Amino acid sequence: MLYSKLVSKTSKSVAHDADSINAKFLLQAGFVRQEMAGVYAWLPLGLRVLRKVENIIREEMNALGSQEVLLPALQSKEHWDQTGRWDSVDVLFKIESQTNKTYGLGPTHEEVVTPLIKEFIRSYKDLPLSVYQIQTKFRDELRAKSGVLRGREFGMKDLYSFHATQEDLEAFYEQALQSYLTVFSRCGLDAKVVEASGGAFTKKFSHEFQVITPAGEDKILTTVDGTFAQNIEISELKEGDPSPENGQPLELHTGVEVGNIFDLGTRFSEAFDVAFTAEDGERIIAKMGCYGIGTTRLVGTIVEAMHDDRGMMWPATVAPYHVHLVSLSNKDPEVQERVWQASQELYEALWAQDIEVLWDDRTDVSAGEKFADADLIGLPLRLVISEKTLTQEAVEWKLRAEKEAALVALEDIQEAVSTVMAQ
Amino acid sequence: MLYSKLVSKTSKSVAHDADSINAKFLLQAGFVRQEMAGVYAWLPLGLRVLRKVENIIREEMNALGSQEVLLPALQSKEHWDQTGRWDSVDVLFKIESQTNKTYGLGPTHEEVVTPLIKEFIRSYKDLPLSVYQIQTKFRDELRAKSGVLRGREFGMKDLYSFHATQEDLEAFYEQALQSYLTVFSRCGLDAKVVEASGGAFTKKFSHEFQVITPAGEDKILTTVDGTFAQNIEISELKEGDPSPENGQPLELHTGVEVGNIFDLGTRFSEAFDVAFTAEDGERIIAKMGCYGIGTTRLVGTIVEAMHDDRGMMWPATVAPYHVHLVSLSNKDPEVQERVWQASQELYEALWAQDIEVLWDDRTDVSAGEKFADADLIGLPLRLVISEKTLTQEAVEWKLRAEKEAALVALEDIQEAVSTVMAQ
Repeated sequence: MLYSKLVSKTSKSVAHDADSINAKFLLQAGFVRQEMAGVYAWLPLGLRVLRKVENIIREEMNALGSQEVLLPALQSKEHWDQTGRWDSVDVLFKIESQTNKTYGLGPTHEEVVTPLIKEFIRSYKDLPLSVYQIQTKFRDELRAKSGVLRGREFGMKDLYSFHATQEDLEAFYEQALQSYLTVFSRCGLDAKVVEASGGAFTKKFSHEFQVITPAGEDKILTTVDGTFAQNIEISELKEGDPSPENGQPLELHTGVEVGNIFDLGTRFSEAFDVAFTAEDGERIIAKMGCYGIGTTRLVGTIVEAMHDDRGMMWPATVAPYHVHLVSLSNKDPEVQERVWQASQELYEALWAQDIEVLWDDRTDVSAGEKFADADLIGLPLRLVISEKTLTQEAVEWKLRAEKEAALVALEDIQEAVSTVMAQ
Repeated sequence: MLYSKLVSKTSKSVAHDADSINAKFLLQAGFVRQEMAGVYAWLPLGLRVLRKVENIIREEMNALGSQEVLLPALQSKEHWDQTGRWDSVDVLFKIESQTNKTYGLGPTHEEVVTPLIKEFIRSYKDLPLSVYQIQTKFRDELRAKSGVLRGREFGMKDLYSFHATQEDLEAFYEQALQSYLTVFSRCGLDAKVVEASGGAFTKKFSHEFQVITPAGEDKILTTVDGTFAQNIEISELKEGDPSPENGQPLELHTGVEVGNIFDLGTRFSEAFDVAFTAEDGERIIAKMGCYGIGTTRLVGTIVEAMHDDRGMMWPATVAPYHVHLVSLSNKDPEVQERVWQASQELYEALWAQDIEVLWDDRTDVSAGEKFADADLIGLPLRLVISEKTLTQEAVEWKLRAEKEAALVALEDIQEAVSTVMAQ
């Protein structure tokens, strides 16, 4: 992609509506644009990150044996009445149509998926069964805040599983937990598994996945080694107490919840009478679990966890592009021709190797501005081609996470890039 | 994919709410499930078709040089007031939040994209510029009908282009028109370019892309050779009149509109003051075009255009899978073992070649039922392995579109499948 053509615009000034580090950098670097409080448009750079995050999640959910579906955002009031949540879930947007029909606008999908899956379950042989979707959710939050961390419209992956027995549910729950850790790790995040309450949706226990950063809304009691972690909402312990696991002192941290998993029991399957015939002929209500990851929130969390004062620092797995190629020249047309020619060749050679390159081909911008933009956008590797590097038949190489630049010979650059991207 | 595990269920009876051929077959074959009137859930088979359609569109929009973004569904009332459409667009769902903030739920995105793109346009050098998204739209239709053809929630690709001059807009408009024909042709459809009115959104002329089928809501006057086609809404001619192009008699047909393109002029750019500085320093309002394709409607139209009385007939480009592999056996465990073993091997060999196979591995279903399901689901190629075919070291081969089956030697089957799928 040529930077000069990209629908994006970096800005030196912090947007007045940036209430968090993720909002500040995502807005300044032109990854997103705020439409209203808690409502964002995703521009090409931001959308590329979001799609990569979604694909990592999709791969891991498929590996769990779950099948992808797409459920509607418009939901039936009758189904929400059936679970008794129409009046109790205060974040539910309610819509009246011109023909006086009332809809809910999905903040979650138990009321859609449970009656849907009911049609596929007759006998114990039809279980276990799980489906997931990656879809837009709507929540009528009193206060939207923290950039893309808590919005009124946001992306989410939600998975729902159905089981014949509690043991089977627990085995799947444990697999899902491990799969979540893989997702977060592939996104470059160290997420802690934290015991938490079921929140508004269930009275049962649940687990949250918390990334420790100052931007978080949650308070977590955890040991240094991570063998114990509880949300203080449910903990009977306090900071400094010894961990019941190994006696280590508990520390209080702030975390962003990037995922959660719930044992729903029969809370929803009973409401919609999702029953199956057991081997002995008995009719039994199925057990359910639900498993969520906020996809847009995950993008924001990556920014909160990986940045410095100059900008973002994307891991290669989710960076919008792998390489930020900067061409520098003075005004001499002959020099510019040589630099741009060499840049074009490298740009094409790297793309031919499936290395994704953003080429800063602008001719009317200073070197300092280009470097500042590269740091702000935060691709893993910056390459610079200038008259100086070309006289040495080389490219300047600098990883975003490191301070020092080095020269790499033009003839070695493709292999060097491939090697570092494969790490 | 193993059919026995698939979240899908074919049904012999037509759903009572199927008001069209696409609804009948998509529901019966378990591609979609109706949640409410005009609101559908997409099950795994249907979602695979939808994703393939979306990817074809994405490739062609990228080839046009357009950049993908993702705009929010929640829209600002202030922006709709600014264009004067808050009260005039009757399909706009309106939402009131618990804090008494009012939102529109996007039926289209001029009110979002125009102020967004305004930020990227300063000089004539920033033009032309276009962005597109593939996103869910909401319309408060008085009457939802015709299955996924006219829904209250549906998928759409919408592209918006911005230009310095009328000539530049018209050149892009023509490129987009050609690109649309490529999209429909890749989806197996013969779409006619039809002159039409601008509808509710613009007073200017526009073009529709109509697929002639009895399910359509539009009446089209067209010649046999397609050199002339007008929506009767704007035509001053009638059935039987000679075409102004070449004198051929005009025929009256029913069509489904799968896409439309509009010259919006300065209707929206003026409302949001999207202006640029021309080469001579003059400040000029940019010109706009918009270009839509209903993605979910396109899936329904493919069903309307390609089916017989037994079921759907997907072109290989958008079929959920390429091959429907049917294993047949009597109750003899030794025979079943041999048939299932050979099926498993072929299944894996084809997937290794990127041929997508749905394997009907069910053991409790008759051959007749399996064949009926294969016809209903409508994958391009059906392969049958049974004791009989194995005694001849062969596989039974039948294209969905043909009546006759043939035997193909096991050793030739992989190459035969690759060859037919590449066509």
